[in-house]
Amino acid sequence: MASVFGGVEGGGTHSKTVLLSGDGKILTEVEGPCTNHWLIGKEKCTENINDMVQRAKIQAGLNPDTPIHCLGMSLSGGEQKDAIEKLIAYMKERFPNLSEHYLITTDAIGAMATASDRGGVVLISGTGSNCKLVNPDGSQIGCGGWGHLMGDEGSAFWIAHLAVKTVFNARDNLVVPPHDITHVKKAMEEYFQVSDLMGMLPHLYRNFQKSHFAGFCKKLSEGAEAGDALCQYVFAQAGRVLAQHVEAVLPAAQEPLLSGDLGLPILCVGSVWKSWSLLKPGFTEVLDKAVSSDKGRFHGYSLLILQQSSALGGARLGAESLGASIKMDYVANAKVFYKHTSKGQQ
Amino acid sequence: MASVFGGVEGGGTHSKTVLLSGDGKILTEVEGPCTNHWLIGKEKCTENINDMVQRAKIQAGLNPDTPIHCLGMSLSGGEQKDAIEKLIAYMKERFPNLSEHYLITTDAIGAMATASDRGGVVLISGTGSNCKLVNPDGSQIGCGGWGHLMGDEGSAFWIAHLAVKTVFNARDNLVVPPHDITHVKKAMEEYFQVSDLMGMLPHLYRNFQKSHFAGFCKKLSEGAEAGDALCQYVFAQAGRVLAQHVEAVLPAAQEPLLSGDLGLPILCVGSVWKSWSLLKPGFTEVLDKAVSSDKGRFHGYSLLILQQSSALGGARLGAESLGASIKMDYVANAKVFYKHTSKGQQ
Repeated sequence: MASVFGGVEGGGTHSKTVLLSGDGKILTEVEGPCTNHWLIGKEKCTENINDMVQRAKIQAGLNPDTPIHCLGMSLSGGEQKDAIEKLIAYMKERFPNLSEHYLITTDAIGAMATASDRGGVVLISGTGSNCKLVNPDGSQIGCGGWGHLMGDEGSAFWIAHLAVKTVFNARDNLVVPPHDITHVKKAMEEYFQVSDLMGMLPHLYRNFQKSHFAGFCKKLSEGAEAGDALCQYVFAQAGRVLAQHVEAVLPAAQEPLLSGDLGLPILCVGSVWKSWSLLKPGFTEVLDKAVSSDKGRFHGYSLLILQQSSALGGARLGAESLGASIKMDYVANAKVFYKHTSKGQQ
Repeated sequence: MASVFGGVEGGGTHSKTVLLSGDGKILTEVEGPCTNHWLIGKEKCTENINDMVQRAKIQAGLNPDTPIHCLGMSLSGGEQKDAIEKLIAYMKERFPNLSEHYLITTDAIGAMATASDRGGVVLISGTGSNCKLVNPDGSQIGCGGWGHLMGDEGSAFWIAHLAVKTVFNARDNLVVPPHDITHVKKAMEEYFQVSDLMGMLPHLYRNFQKSHFAGFCKKLSEGAEAGDALCQYVFAQAGRVLAQHVEAVLPAAQEPLLSGDLGLPILCVGSVWKSWSLLKPGFTEVLDKAVSSDKGRFHGYSLLILQQSSALGGARLGAESLGASIKMDYVANAKVFYKHTSKGQQ
């Protein structure tokens, strides 16, 4: 199937696969579970990918025994060169009918490739978090993306952890909570099905599942929307630290990224951005201050959200690695949902 | 062996077992590896305990097929009632010749039982950390002890993590490091045998071993002693947060704990206390301020260190649970190494 390109958007909780024709037409889309090889190991990761692609072939009326031309994967955890080479080698050996060629890139680069060919910042907040600045010349600089033991600030995991830790610290009299913990404690006991703090230990250690732990974030967003101050606080803190990731990569931004009408384009990826209104107080406090205190270069920013899966960008990069190209409609693929410039905000 | 009592001091890295005669005489001592069931699971935990006790029996010239009278275990991770009941049931079934009776208590309570029968604060900083106040009437209140994902502040793991995170944050331009990171980065690369930050990921996730990660703390203590400012900083921060654990439990202290000549007795347990001179700046800053700002109740404190393994306290509590008693020489078992009162310090 020389004319069929596949793309995978791989996350710590959900994944997506698309099949495209060479002219950029989406043939089919399927969904699947976690494909972060750091979280589930390369065996399970490749099984989950193979399962999605094979289901997609069947759904598109293609022969599942015939490999597609190239599978471009945009994976959370797809950073380390050695590890991704091993992952591809293993995939070729184990599933010879899956695809003729492979490319693995990170979730950040796949998202950026879906939204633009001129660069910008990708700011991921899903199960985990990550920030990557891609310059017009292709050079990159990152901040975060080290997983829940060394980063993930502002992610669903981090928000859930901050809320739970606030309950532990209050119980321990170690830190005075910024707001009453009653609602969060009750929501925690319900979500994790525990009756006391001791009961949380298996969720944190023996039976730890990052995706499940991070899922508590959704309950916190509901609490925040219902007006609970501590729930609102943890999201504002997440907004703050996500904005700090942008500040961290800002010095490396080349001039054309900053001088457009949109200011610095920041592509927001991941399900935590569904709670933008909750992130906003902390996010804008930090980044708007950076705009107003910057003399010259940083005069504003826009937040964009994908209208298509970053599996598209994965497929595009896979095709380009073979000298082919897939037509992309960048204007349709991403839209601005917030804009702030030193001349005012919309 | 109705007259032989065993005690286990179980840690996240090392463990110790003693056998005692009824009059308190130490028959033998043996060492062993990690016995924290949260870290290694109940199977491995009980195997390691059985192995130590059986070696101890042989070393003491006892028949390894004859159970001792009672095994009192003072275990890090020995907190949760359900879990320790299961652990004992499993141990009885799997190793019927080990001991006739069992008791499991926490590392904190075992240490306290070794040092005193009048209560005080136990402040643990080993692989993990924990703080427990035991009142003269036996009532207890704790702070911390939730493991590396929800606590462990001031522990070897926490110190190692803080140092490594400082390197990551500096590389990411996310947080300006308080001191130059050159030495810590080099020490990290040497200890973990990595050439870049990416190489740290397997140490944090797939191949994570808390004890090995925490072992980096020793290298940091060497750096601090050689004068590196960042190494000194992370230990001072550990001292600060350990003192905050004492502040957290202080309101629950009954009068007799505070009114003695020693002030509040704080029993310091765990290998991080070997670096007391490095912890001291942060620790004394926090706790001396608490002494001077407290009107009346908290007029001083003393830090004590065990001269014997807290396996002794485990054995004592095991014996007491059967209505027996083991003679303890508390004055010999713990000595004061630092004292601060509002009338001055020694």
